Amino acid sequence: MLCVGLDTDREKIPAHLLDASDPVFEFNKAIIDATHPYTVAYKINTAFYEAQGINGWISLQKTLEYIPSDIFTIADAKRGDIGNTADQYAKTFFQTYPFDSVTVAPYMGSDSVKPFLGHDGHWAIVLGLTSNKGSQDFQLLPQGDGLLYEQVLKTVSSWGNPENLMFVIGATQGDQLSHVRSMIPDHFLLIPGVGAQGGDLDTVCQCAMNKDLGILVNVSRAVIFAGEGRDFAAKAGAAAKVYQEQMAVYIE
Amino acid sequence: MLCVGLDTDREKIPAHLLDASDPVFEFNKAIIDATHPYTVAYKINTAFYEAQGINGWISLQKTLEYIPSDIFTIADAKRGDIGNTADQYAKTFFQTYPFDSVTVAPYMGSDSVKPFLGHDGHWAIVLGLTSNKGSQDFQLLPQGDGLLYEQVLKTVSSWGNPENLMFVIGATQGDQLSHVRSMIPDHFLLIPGVGAQGGDLDTVCQCAMNKDLGILVNVSRAVIFAGEGRDFAAKAGAAAKVYQEQMAVYIE
Repeated sequence: MLCVGLDTDREKIPAHLLDASDPVFEFNKAIIDATHPYTVAYKINTAFYEAQGINGWISLQKTLEYIPSDIFTIADAKRGDIGNTADQYAKTFFQTYPFDSVTVAPYMGSDSVKPFLGHDGHWAIVLGLTSNKGSQDFQLLPQGDGLLYEQVLKTVSSWGNPENLMFVIGATQGDQLSHVRSMIPDHFLLIPGVGAQGGDLDTVCQCAMNKDLGILVNVSRAVIFAGEGRDFAAKAGAAAKVYQEQMAVYIE
Repeated sequence: MLCVGLDTDREKIPAHLLDASDPVFEFNKAIIDATHPYTVAYKINTAFYEAQGINGWISLQKTLEYIPSDIFTIADAKRGDIGNTADQYAKTFFQTYPFDSVTVAPYMGSDSVKPFLGHDGHWAIVLGLTSNKGSQDFQLLPQGDGLLYEQVLKTVSSWGNPENLMFVIGATQGDQLSHVRSMIPDHFLLIPGVGAQGGDLDTVCQCAMNKDLGILVNVSRAVIFAGEGRDFAAKAGAAAKVYQEQMAVYIE
């Protein structure tokens, strides 16, 4: 159930890698080698690659190709635009860069989400409730007989099914996770916020799992930057193993 | 007040350009040459470039460099993510690709928007009310004593000022435009929806202008794909001139 987030900030890469021709890829390669036994998914946060320009996209492509084919891949890109533009983003992240899934922002509504739903074997992962402080500004506003994020879950889930649609649900509070699970019992949830952002893993497992497990728990910084020296990959692997073992208790 | 949207769909480029080493850039170059006398801004819809992979980013960079320096540039990228990621997106579109502004989605709240506001001479253009059908799904939902998009305008405008913040307001209905202008009298509005999406230009000018003009009216397909043959650029220039002249009436 562990998803490792490759939020590879070039400024945090161990110094000994900076002489490589592609330090970001060398870093990711070592992280993938060390963590994939404990991982079911990798999430690439596209912003960290986009900020490096062309070189960043090259690092992204090489990283995506290096991920073992049995591991689920997520482009964490949070795209969202009108229909003809959303089609282009679906092409970007399902064809040009063949990820299994992409994160999508819901604010622009149906025609910004549906173009991602017609691609067999690919998923849109729509923002429901996020784990950041700013989620309170709009997502938690009262809205009809509930909150805005509840309306988003209700409306967006009617456009797709568990075979083409997942949701991002931040891991901040157990009662919210339980409530979300009762609203959308069958969809997979991508759960960020564990680790550097402070979410508690046991609470997540207890409140958000369903009969098919149904969760991908993303940890980014707390795994990939677990170490800073030449043993960074070993430390990342050890950190991933701890998370995996903590979750394994709930699988049996 | 005219902004031309470079939503350059490679599949719609005139056939005679497809032999060029970079057809997208050749197309944009000709469009810019023909339209810049009538234009105050160019909006590059990043999706159409991202979908082409590395080559698309090269076309984007060359296009950005080719735009005359006195013309305002907009990265229509609709990014939005937590703080450390939003910082990377600001770096992407203010430094790596030095646009004047970038469009930003509000769903994730304050920490997803504020990182774009601390860059002198650069603007975040936050989605308020969009012009697509899906805007009804969430933006127009009743929310406290108003609608969600009104709450977004109210809250987001409190985070910035007219020197670092604009809003996207779709040009579908005059009464909505007038209402938005009364809510945020001083912010520039980027108004899409005129042209292929059906918005009426006179209504826009009458309802959305303020004492400093205060609007950028974006037209994409109705200008850049005004012609299909060898004279595509001349036809685009002529289309841009018609829009510019229609708006000039309101400036005097």
